[in-house]
Amino acid sequence: MKVVKFGGSSLASGEQFEKVYHIVLSDAARKIIVVSAPGKRHKSDKKVTDLLIENADYYLTYREINEGLLEQVVGRFYSIAVELGIYTDIISDIRADIIARLTMSISNNKKYMDRVKAGGEDNTARLLAAYFNSKGKEAHYINPLEAGLFVTDQPGNAQVLAESYENLASLKEKSGILVFPGFFGYSKSGEILTFSRSGSDITGSILANAIHAELYENFTDVDAVYSVNPITVRNPKEIRELTYREMRELSYAGFSVLHDEALIPAYRAGIPVHIKNTNNPSAPGTKIVNQRTITNGPVIGIASAKGFCSIYVSKYLMNRELGFGRKLLQILEDFNLSYEHSPSGIDDISIILRQNEIGNEMEEAIRNRVFTELEADEVKIERNLALIMIVGEGMRHNVGTTARASRALAHCGVNIEMINQGSSEVSMMFGVKEVDEDRAVHSLYEEFFVSVSV
Amino acid sequence: MKVVKFGGSSLASGEQFEKVYHIVLSDAARKIIVVSAPGKRHKSDKKVTDLLIENADYYLTYREINEGLLEQVVGRFYSIAVELGIYTDIISDIRADIIARLTMSISNNKKYMDRVKAGGEDNTARLLAAYFNSKGKEAHYINPLEAGLFVTDQPGNAQVLAESYENLASLKEKSGILVFPGFFGYSKSGEILTFSRSGSDITGSILANAIHAELYENFTDVDAVYSVNPITVRNPKEIRELTYREMRELSYAGFSVLHDEALIPAYRAGIPVHIKNTNNPSAPGTKIVNQRTITNGPVIGIASAKGFCSIYVSKYLMNRELGFGRKLLQILEDFNLSYEHSPSGIDDISIILRQNEIGNEMEEAIRNRVFTELEADEVKIERNLALIMIVGEGMRHNVGTTARASRALAHCGVNIEMINQGSSEVSMMFGVKEVDEDRAVHSLYEEFFVSVSV
Repeated sequence: MKVVKFGGSSLASGEQFEKVYHIVLSDAARKIIVVSAPGKRHKSDKKVTDLLIENADYYLTYREINEGLLEQVVGRFYSIAVELGIYTDIISDIRADIIARLTMSISNNKKYMDRVKAGGEDNTARLLAAYFNSKGKEAHYINPLEAGLFVTDQPGNAQVLAESYENLASLKEKSGILVFPGFFGYSKSGEILTFSRSGSDITGSILANAIHAELYENFTDVDAVYSVNPITVRNPKEIRELTYREMRELSYAGFSVLHDEALIPAYRAGIPVHIKNTNNPSAPGTKIVNQRTITNGPVIGIASAKGFCSIYVSKYLMNRELGFGRKLLQILEDFNLSYEHSPSGIDDISIILRQNEIGNEMEEAIRNRVFTELEADEVKIERNLALIMIVGEGMRHNVGTTARASRALAHCGVNIEMINQGSSEVSMMFGVKEVDEDRAVHSLYEEFFVSVSV
Repeated sequence: MKVVKFGGSSLASGEQFEKVYHIVLSDAARKIIVVSAPGKRHKSDKKVTDLLIENADYYLTYREINEGLLEQVVGRFYSIAVELGIYTDIISDIRADIIARLTMSISNNKKYMDRVKAGGEDNTARLLAAYFNSKGKEAHYINPLEAGLFVTDQPGNAQVLAESYENLASLKEKSGILVFPGFFGYSKSGEILTFSRSGSDITGSILANAIHAELYENFTDVDAVYSVNPITVRNPKEIRELTYREMRELSYAGFSVLHDEALIPAYRAGIPVHIKNTNNPSAPGTKIVNQRTITNGPVIGIASAKGFCSIYVSKYLMNRELGFGRKLLQILEDFNLSYEHSPSGIDDISIILRQNEIGNEMEEAIRNRVFTELEADEVKIERNLALIMIVGEGMRHNVGTTARASRALAHCGVNIEMINQGSSEVSMMFGVKEVDEDRAVHSLYEEFFVSVSV
């Protein structure tokens, strides 16, 4: 039995719904279908979820529905239904549902937002089930509340409750194809709460775990996970198989094919994840597995992300001072900042964090506290760093990978601002200036995927 | 005006005292002489300080003097005096002084030990001044209490009090050569307290700062600081000039020419330190300066030290957990462990510490706390790591140093267990298995000091 998740671009239009229909029917094991809300049909299009957020924002401000915005959302569902020739009450049901979400009492703005946003996935699931039915196939929309998908009371960042798995396991017994809306669950008191953005992947992963699926298929709009961002490097190699650990490391620094949190439930149950392309279902795709055979050299992928900054703190004889690092981290924690890495010298330490979390005022406040409380000699904040990660199970004890990577960076004239290697055995991280990022990634790709020299 | 410090081997015998005498007189600027206690004359010899410790230990156990041990100490001074032909009461004075130190009331064992140990330097200073006098030169033993060298009340690890600098400044006004015992100061209540071991370097540095010396000369038994440990690499290059930062980084991992804490007062006053050889005073030696011209490629020295271990902790989604790193460091701090470095991955972090600080029981206790309090997935402790540091101001923004270093390690088949680069701009640290240390150091030396390729 397989759980099959379709992303927003796979459900953006009637044409896409048809593809989904054929994909599902082509394999009898495809039993549980998880859907996102319709995504963009073209570059300047809006995602249904974004339209719903606009509706909610308007309502929160003016306490009335903006009819124009409402029609944009309903119109998206309508045009899909028309394209598919579905002539039931479904469209008026969807309109009523969205109006109800918008106008029901507001206990808390964040929860209100979750309730409205969830309308995208929920109505897509209804529409897809209706489409299957209109073609004479048995398919059922599954209500997450009735199915027992319970989550914590954290708007926008709900976590699944353990009991949900047992509840959801009984879905196996139901007949027909089951269409399950992604992205949200219910608190024990019956309120809708969403997972973090792209949370439909999470729903699919939870369901795969719950029913002990043989495979969790994740349909999106790319043929495979690429070894490097195709925007940076043209026609990069596709990855056929990668491990959970590799995927997690790659997701961290910019690979956005799969929401990394989504992997946890499938990972825990040891279920492989297959990433495939709705628009090209015969392509082999990429499988995420527990263990793989190393074939292609030590590195399987290169990821990078902009937007990091470093806080450099130095103090003569810091090294002798018990608790210095801990106190520094405590200060950052007081500002609610989570840090990414902390390379250290003898008398200095750098804290790497995402720079959007730290504004100028906070920077000043941190600087003051570090000077006064820790009596630092120097505090320096450097912005606009990019982190580049090279990832691969083959790097474990592969003598020379560091040499190859750093030589590649030297060859293209990129200065390494920091290296973090030593904890995870399947990745190595380089910090460079943002302006050097593309050059660095190109050169690393060349070294590990194109050139044959060692 | 110069402050000149002579180490234990420079004062181990009458012959060495003569060398010191000639060195001091050969430069009229050599005004303040700081002395250590006599060191070893040959490999199997004992240092005076160690003999004093044996005396003290015996007395603490039996509350009586061990005459044999006492004679060993007094004999060292006696043989120097005889060699130099000093026929004054000085030897009976020294004997009386040491007996007094051993038998005066004991308030605290650690302070008792400090008082006895300080007798080595104190009596050496008296003896050296007497020697100058015996040759008709004006020289004065300076009592640190009278001169106002006040320190904190921390036995074996005293810190200089700020007011001392002003007190000591007036030494400039005194006539003749001033012989100052190194290694200890006095608490405000008049008790003797020593600096950390090799603390005579500290005394010299404090005096250099206090009198605004033009130079702090540090005479020892090597011609220069070497670019790498001569035990590992034969006839390594000598370093002519290195900066304070470089010296500090090198001291950390095994370079023991100069006690690194000693540099602080001289460093703060911007006074250059000149390391010279008592046994070969015409050798150019090594100068420690604030800034130097980069001549010899990016790296100036390679240091390494055994005896580190790493505590590896992993937890899925650790990265999302605010405060994880801080809590982990807090646990180590509760065990009074200061950590050295903490390279991190996405979901894991390694803490590097000196392994002699962490026994098996403590290891178990730490493991338990990390599992229960932090709910880690995995905790792994790896012992017998060596840290290798390559150091040089020339590495700042030198593209390619990492590549050269890691290539050198790859060439000799050494796996890099961790890299720490990014905080200090003048050093790069590699963690390797202890068994690989020598091979790694050789290969790095070859790369940066012998081979001409870039």
